[in-house]
Amino acid sequence: MFRRLIPREGKFFDLFKQSAALIVEGSKEFCELLNDLPNAESRTRKIKAIEHQADEVTHATVELLHTTFITPLDREDIHQLISRMDDILDFIEAASERILLYGITEAPPLAAELAKLCLLSAENIQQAINELENLKNRSEIIRHCVEINRLENEADQVLRMAMAKLFKEETDTRQLIKYKEIYEILETVTDRCEDVANIVEGIVLEYS
Amino acid sequence: MFRRLIPREGKFFDLFKQSAALIVEGSKEFCELLNDLPNAESRTRKIKAIEHQADEVTHATVELLHTTFITPLDREDIHQLISRMDDILDFIEAASERILLYGITEAPPLAAELAKLCLLSAENIQQAINELENLKNRSEIIRHCVEINRLENEADQVLRMAMAKLFKEETDTRQLIKYKEIYEILETVTDRCEDVANIVEGIVLEYS
Amino acid sequence: MFRRLIPREGKFFDLFKQSAALIVEGSKEFCELLNDLPNAESRTRKIKAIEHQADEVTHATVELLHTTFITPLDREDIHQLISRMDDILDFIEAASERILLYGITEAPPLAAELAKLCLLSAENIQQAINELENLKNRSEIIRHCVEINRLENEADQVLRMAMAKLFKEETDTRQLIKYKEIYEILETVTDRCEDVANIVEGIVLEYS
Repeated sequence: MFRRLIPREGKFFDLFKQSAALIVEGSKEFCELLNDLPNAESRTRKIKAIEHQADEVTHATVELLHTTFITPLDREDIHQLISRMDDILDFIEAASERILLYGITEAPPLAAELAKLCLLSAENIQQAINELENLKNRSEIIRHCVEINRLENEADQVLRMAMAKLFKEETDTRQLIKYKEIYEILETVTDRCEDVANIVEGIVLEYS
Repeated sequence: MFRRLIPREGKFFDLFKQSAALIVEGSKEFCELLNDLPNAESRTRKIKAIEHQADEVTHATVELLHTTFITPLDREDIHQLISRMDDILDFIEAASERILLYGITEAPPLAAELAKLCLLSAENIQQAINELENLKNRSEIIRHCVEINRLENEADQVLRMAMAKLFKEETDTRQLIKYKEIYEILETVTDRCEDVANIVEGIVLEYS
Repeated sequence: MFRRLIPREGKFFDLFKQSAALIVEGSKEFCELLNDLPNAESRTRKIKAIEHQADEVTHATVELLHTTFITPLDREDIHQLISRMDDILDFIEAASERILLYGITEAPPLAAELAKLCLLSAENIQQAINELENLKNRSEIIRHCVEINRLENEADQVLRMAMAKLFKEETDTRQLIKYKEIYEILETVTDRCEDVANIVEGIVLEYS
C-alpha cells in the first residue's frame, strides 16, 4: 500500500534532475552554436527541442503534484522550483533565436564568455539538484548556490565590459542594438540561475 | 455573529473578480487604441482611469486583509495574487503611454497581434478567477492557466518575428527603438499574466 | 540557556537595519555622483564598496539562518527580505557603472530627479525596517510601504517624461541609447524598493 507513495516521492527528484540535465545540455548547445554560426538554424532547432522537452518535464511535475497526496517537499516549493528551472531554458532559447532571426554572422565579441558562465551556472544547478533528495549534504548544496551567485556577479561584470566595448567599437548602431540585446539575454540566464539557487537555498533552510 | 465573517470571505473573491474585470477592460481598450491612434490621448486617459480603479481594488483588498481575522485563502496568497494582477494593468498603461509620448501615428506592424494575445490572456485570467471561489472546477481553472502559459509562448514567438521584421524593414533607427520598446512592453503583459496563472495554479494545488 | 536565543533573534533585525542603512548610503552617494561626474571613478568605487558591504550583511544573515533554531520571523521571509534588499544596491551600482563605462560627462537631464526618488524610497525602507522588530507600529510600517508604492509610480511617470524628452531632444542616437538605459536602471531601483515594501507588508499581515 505504501509502495504507491514512495516511488512517487522519488519521482519528483527524478523530474528535477531531468530538468537540470536539460538546462546543462541546452547551455552546452548554445556554446557550440556560437562557434558554428553558419549552422545557426539547425542548432537553434536543437535548442528548441531541448526547451520543449523541459516544458514536458515541467508539465509532468505539475501533473504529479495534482495526483500526489504526500509530497517530499512543500507543494509550493516544488511548483516554484520546476517553474523557475523552466525559465532558464526559455532565455537560452531566446538568445539562440535572436542570433538566427537577426541574421548574426559574427558572434558578439564577449558572447562566448557569457555563454561559458551560463554553462557553469547550469552545471552548479545540476550538482545542487542532484544533492537535494538527501539533504545530508546541505553545506555542499549551499556551496553550489553561493557559486551560482558568484557566477551571476561575474556575468554582470562581463556584461558591463561588453557594453562599454560595444559603444566604443561598434560603429553600426543597429548592430549595436542587436548585440546589446543578445548580451542582456545571456546575462538574464545567469539571473534566472540565481533565482533557482535562491529557491534551492530556501528549501535547504526550511528542511534543516 | 458569524454573518460578519462570511460576507468578508466572499468579499475577497468579489475583489479578485473586480480586478480581473478591469484587466479585461483595459486590454480591450488597448486593442481599440491601436485602431484609433488619432485619439490616443483620450484613450490613454481612459486606460489610466481603469488602472487607477484597479489600484483602488488592490488597496481595498490589502485593507480587508488587515481587518479580517479568518481569510478564505492563505493571507500571503491573497496579497500576492492581487499585487500581481495589479501589475498587468501597469504594463498595459505603460504601452499606451509610450504610444502617446513617442507621438506614434502608425501602430507597430505586429502590435495588434500582441494586443490580441494580451486580451486573450486577460480573459483566461478572468475565467480562472471566477472559478476560484468554489474550487470544485479545479481542472477547469488549471486549463485556463495552461492556456495562459501557451499564450505567453505564442506572444514570445510573435515578439521574435516582430523584432526580425523591424530590423529588416524599419530604416529609421529611432523609430525602431520606439517600436521595439512597445513590443517588449506588450510581451511583458503576457509574462505578468503568466505570473498570475502560476499563483492561481499554486493556490489550486495547495487547496486540493 | 535562553540568552543564547534572544540575542540571535535581535541579530536578524540588526542585520536588516544594517542592510537598510547601506541602501540609504548608496542612494545618497549616487545622488552626489550625478553632481560630480569628473570624479565618477572614485565615486563608483565607493558605491561598489557599499554594495560589497551589503553582500556581506546578506551572507551573514543566511549564515545566521543556518545556525539559528528559532527565528523571529518565518525563515523564508527572512531569506526573501534580505535577498531583495540586496538587489536594490545591485541596481544602484549598475547605474553608476554605466555612467563610468559609457564615459558619461553630462548627466541625463532627468537622472537627478529619478535618483532623488530612489533616495526617498530607500529612506522609507529604512524607516519601515526600523519599526519591524516591534510590530506595534503596524500602521506606521504600512504607511511607509504605501509611500514606497507611490514613489515607484512617480518614478514611472518621470521615466516616461524622460523618454519622451530624450526622443525629442537628443539627436545622437547612441547617446540616446545610453541615457535610456541609465533611466531604466534607476526606475528599476524603485521597482526593487517596491518588491521589498511588498515583502514587508506581507510580513506585517502575517504577524497581525
